Amino acid sequence: MAAINAANSGSAPSYGADEFTGKLQAAASEIFGIPVAIFPVTTGTAANALALAQMVPPYGAVYCHDAAHIVTDECGAPEFFTGGAKTMGLPAADGKITARQVAGAIAHAEDMGVHHVKPAALSLSQATEWGTVYAPDEVSALAAVARQHGLPVHMDGARLANALVHLGCTPAEATWKSGIDVLSLGATKNGALCAEAVVFFDAARARDFERRRKQAGHLWSKMRFVSAQLLAYFANGLWLDNARHANAMASALAEGLRGVAGASLLQSVDANEVFVALPEALVAALERQGFGFYRWPLAAASGGVAIRLVTSYSTPRAHVDEFLRAVRGSAGPNS
Amino acid sequence: MAAINAANSGSAPSYGADEFTGKLQAAASEIFGIPVAIFPVTTGTAANALALAQMVPPYGAVYCHDAAHIVTDECGAPEFFTGGAKTMGLPAADGKITARQVAGAIAHAEDMGVHHVKPAALSLSQATEWGTVYAPDEVSALAAVARQHGLPVHMDGARLANALVHLGCTPAEATWKSGIDVLSLGATKNGALCAEAVVFFDAARARDFERRRKQAGHLWSKMRFVSAQLLAYFANGLWLDNARHANAMASALAEGLRGVAGASLLQSVDANEVFVALPEALVAALERQGFGFYRWPLAAASGGVAIRLVTSYSTPRAHVDEFLRAVRGSAGPNS
Amino acid sequence: MAAINAANSGSAPSYGADEFTGKLQAAASEIFGIPVAIFPVTTGTAANALALAQMVPPYGAVYCHDAAHIVTDECGAPEFFTGGAKTMGLPAADGKITARQVAGAIAHAEDMGVHHVKPAALSLSQATEWGTVYAPDEVSALAAVARQHGLPVHMDGARLANALVHLGCTPAEATWKSGIDVLSLGATKNGALCAEAVVFFDAARARDFERRRKQAGHLWSKMRFVSAQLLAYFANGLWLDNARHANAMASALAEGLRGVAGASLLQSVDANEVFVALPEALVAALERQGFGFYRWPLAAASGGVAIRLVTSYSTPRAHVDEFLRAVRGSAGPNS
Amino acid sequence: MAAINAANSGSAPSYGADEFTGKLQAAASEIFGIPVAIFPVTTGTAANALALAQMVPPYGAVYCHDAAHIVTDECGAPEFFTGGAKTMGLPAADGKITARQVAGAIAHAEDMGVHHVKPAALSLSQATEWGTVYAPDEVSALAAVARQHGLPVHMDGARLANALVHLGCTPAEATWKSGIDVLSLGATKNGALCAEAVVFFDAARARDFERRRKQAGHLWSKMRFVSAQLLAYFANGLWLDNARHANAMASALAEGLRGVAGASLLQSVDANEVFVALPEALVAALERQGFGFYRWPLAAASGGVAIRLVTSYSTPRAHVDEFLRAVRGSAGPNS
Repeated sequence: MAAINAANSGSAPSYGADEFTGKLQAAASEIFGIPVAIFPVTTGTAANALALAQMVPPYGAVYCHDAAHIVTDECGAPEFFTGGAKTMGLPAADGKITARQVAGAIAHAEDMGVHHVKPAALSLSQATEWGTVYAPDEVSALAAVARQHGLPVHMDGARLANALVHLGCTPAEATWKSGIDVLSLGATKNGALCAEAVVFFDAARARDFERRRKQAGHLWSKMRFVSAQLLAYFANGLWLDNARHANAMASALAEGLRGVAGASLLQSVDANEVFVALPEALVAALERQGFGFYRWPLAAASGGVAIRLVTSYSTPRAHVDEFLRAVRGSAGPNS
Repeated sequence: MAAINAANSGSAPSYGADEFTGKLQAAASEIFGIPVAIFPVTTGTAANALALAQMVPPYGAVYCHDAAHIVTDECGAPEFFTGGAKTMGLPAADGKITARQVAGAIAHAEDMGVHHVKPAALSLSQATEWGTVYAPDEVSALAAVARQHGLPVHMDGARLANALVHLGCTPAEATWKSGIDVLSLGATKNGALCAEAVVFFDAARARDFERRRKQAGHLWSKMRFVSAQLLAYFANGLWLDNARHANAMASALAEGLRGVAGASLLQSVDANEVFVALPEALVAALERQGFGFYRWPLAAASGGVAIRLVTSYSTPRAHVDEFLRAVRGSAGPNS
Repeated sequence: MAAINAANSGSAPSYGADEFTGKLQAAASEIFGIPVAIFPVTTGTAANALALAQMVPPYGAVYCHDAAHIVTDECGAPEFFTGGAKTMGLPAADGKITARQVAGAIAHAEDMGVHHVKPAALSLSQATEWGTVYAPDEVSALAAVARQHGLPVHMDGARLANALVHLGCTPAEATWKSGIDVLSLGATKNGALCAEAVVFFDAARARDFERRRKQAGHLWSKMRFVSAQLLAYFANGLWLDNARHANAMASALAEGLRGVAGASLLQSVDANEVFVALPEALVAALERQGFGFYRWPLAAASGGVAIRLVTSYSTPRAHVDEFLRAVRGSAGPNS
Repeated sequence: MAAINAANSGSAPSYGADEFTGKLQAAASEIFGIPVAIFPVTTGTAANALALAQMVPPYGAVYCHDAAHIVTDECGAPEFFTGGAKTMGLPAADGKITARQVAGAIAHAEDMGVHHVKPAALSLSQATEWGTVYAPDEVSALAAVARQHGLPVHMDGARLANALVHLGCTPAEATWKSGIDVLSLGATKNGALCAEAVVFFDAARARDFERRRKQAGHLWSKMRFVSAQLLAYFANGLWLDNARHANAMASALAEGLRGVAGASLLQSVDANEVFVALPEALVAALERQGFGFYRWPLAAASGGVAIRLVTSYSTPRAHVDEFLRAVRGSAGPNS
């Protein structure tokens, strides 16, 4: 917010010709250790859909997890922006698809020939929709299959900072060094007001991208206000600090839940999301105390209810402790 | 073909203003027992994709079987023609989705709200991709769920004639009386040179459809040549006779295969397709004798190989017998 | 900016369920004197293209001025968002198309039938691209022709506040009372950081608009920051005050230029834009003094050069005077 | 028609893997004197729109004549197939745009930058919409400008045979030797039942074109029936013979009209179309005798009425003479 206010002083060239946007290219290139082309936008849906539209033709197939944001949460934005391409969701219980799955899906498409959409891109969510994180060698193996068939690789990095903190690797290692060609980089979930970006690790892939962004109504006349947010986000490791806090709060939640009778963590807690199964009576009791949950539809097994807990850069430790106390208080003597 | 040649004499008004196209409206209305608006096109993909584009917005969801032609075999045509809508494939081992599945999928979409594509249409294949046929009351139950949520219902009738012959019901009973709003009617697989049609049972739904067809390049200047095929197709029950023959040949194949050791019919043979599992060695022996198969990817179970056998209006009984003899000859003494 | 900072305190529901967005509905309804459905977005291109996509089918024609922003400055956004509709630019020297022109264009389309895109909407820029303003009766006459042929009417109100100040009429009179159905309301050019909106005067026309906005990546998770800007914009007549200042500065420029030898105002200065022809030598002299101009391509007549001067809410009177002094100083003794 | 019937004997591989389609590649390559990739489709609108979709991005501009078929007669097909590109019609009284016009339009686009659609292709109609024909050096000059800016060049050859006969040059000279990259080749207007084709003179430009055709519903399962028409069309110069006759009939019409009082030929009669202005009374008299005309909207000058007369491969000389007799009979003693 301070950065936005600072950008508000004086007047400035419009449509991204301002100094903030210029500095952002340099800052992002330094962060990723390679010259990148970075294009700010203001929603994650726009970042993903514009990135994919740049990568695949209308008759293309995008391989991804079947719970990927691009499949389930963007109201058909990838199909709309690409003019018809299909997202091909692959199942994976832990949110991480495998190189073998992708190879199999591509082989099937090749058997089908012209009747089938053409394999055109691979898209990986990092961290995944299930709060897990791909290791760099997992990404490399997936990217290798894609490359073998001529497919570029996209990363939906709405939670990339959370993944980086978990992995302890550099942004470069987690992205282009592992075979990522185009990155949707999220900042809004991690502290920004409205700042996302599409990052191309090879500028040649960004050809005419500014027209595509303009045609979709995502070129701001006062672009400096988005760029300023991203500059502040990268400065002094703020993005990683924010993510580190969010991850720590998720870990604390997970740790606290481990001792609760009837509670069962459904996924490895790698980033800032906790998926946990709890007895129905316990969830109901918590709801009566004023907590609200998104009851996850996929994990009704084990007689309980699955809920998702998401932490953020602004989650106070006290809230975590308060929630855990409430859980233990409602869970009965054994816990 | 005789009908096409007849249409070639003299000159005629272009773009569908000819007498053949006029007669077709009357003929189709008589066939279906209700005034219909029928629009000839020349491929099944065009019929399906244009029909769906007329029914759903770019942010719409089309519920259907996960092996539906619109999902797997049209290279993304529905997504392209609708400008972004998604086909939502539901699994069903026998090719027939259920009212309960559709209700569940719609409920999930409603929970997700604006992030999810909007439930916008139901599409049923009749006969299905697995050679089975929906009974009218199954269609009615599905259509009732759709109607309850405001969704129009489409039928992919690429093999409608085969289904009608199997059901022994009228075209009206199989379509609008069961709740179908828009029909893709196939003739090419059943004898025509290049004739399909989109049939609207309520003319109000066809508003501006002629522009949509024109914009997609599917308005023929010499439309009479397509209309003439459909007129001949309907005349004297030719379409049903052709389908009756095709179905009978499929039944004969199924009957013959029932006695073969190791052969296992995978689906009820309701129309003109036979899905059968055979021992790998037997399939290989048949291939050596010159038979060619589409080895179906989904049924590797039981140690054998699944193949699809499709019969048509022009399949001679002798070919069926010859194939069955070859199977028995290669299958060994027990059969 | 203060409003944005205020919206930053505490946390809030996301995706437009916040209190700011709720208040905005009420505020806009009060401003326009009728219950409206208002949807904030963050660029004018998005507002126009989403509005048109809601109004016209892919095979539709949008009638407008041939220099309209939707024709010349949005990189094909209307065509992209509508899935293929055409903008049909009509010429008018003063930027204002006439009811007669629109009637003629529609009649031609009707003669052409299915081969021609279907007349589907009328779009008027207010103020126009040439800095002129439609009188309410001019808008009414245009809207009457549209309505007679079933076309809804869109207003590109990127500079609506400037037009209102000039006309001295109410927002209602300038819009829905004159026959406007859907309004793109601009605030960014008139002081906001990034706030535009699509306003529907009949909520029925807004059906599913929130999905269309989401699918295009224009639904902000932190929507309150846009809504807060619009609330501040409307509060205490700030939008009109800003526009009044901008218009006054443009009038002062025009007045000052009237006395300059060789200067010729090319358009009536109704809003915040001045189009003036000046001798080439004078423009060159000004450029040498550090002024920069957009040399307008359409008015090379009269031996001079046409330039565009745009004033804003933040243009100081001193800048206007300084510019006029420079002009007079360079224009020679006669002026 | 004979060719279609011949193709009907026996069965054949589907979706273009038949022998007719194979032979067509060789036949077309021989006709054009270079290896080409030729894709049959069944309407001219499909040929043009698919060709352009292959050539330009959604944010692209296609430069062409403002009366080009792609602008006025295809119901927005180019916009739909490309996902948003714009046709940029340039005026030219004789139907032939000039290299200078195209250079100017591209320069304007470059000035406008990201706000303007990107110059992406040039499309020329040969023969033109006004019945005139570009000389090869005119095409070369236009193509040179396009190439200088990186734009591929498309030719709408719905009447290419008529142009070839007029020019007396080879198909190669009229197309790729003059700089054409992609050709829409028409046969339907010149004798075929439903046969058009997209011809790529550089196979690399045809990459994935078969998917694009499939996704648009233009891949016939029984493709041999289209290919057979084109083979017959090319065989023994039939296409040129048909066009020669049509052109000769147009010349005879023009010659006969030259002596008629008040008649004024509006365009050079290069191909098979005659645009002539006649006194209103004369046209009315002819209409009373049963002749029907398309009264052309653009040439109301000179107090008369403009009509278009189109001849074809099947226009008998007797019809031409009969029409001219009627004209002379109604035109009064002076003619």
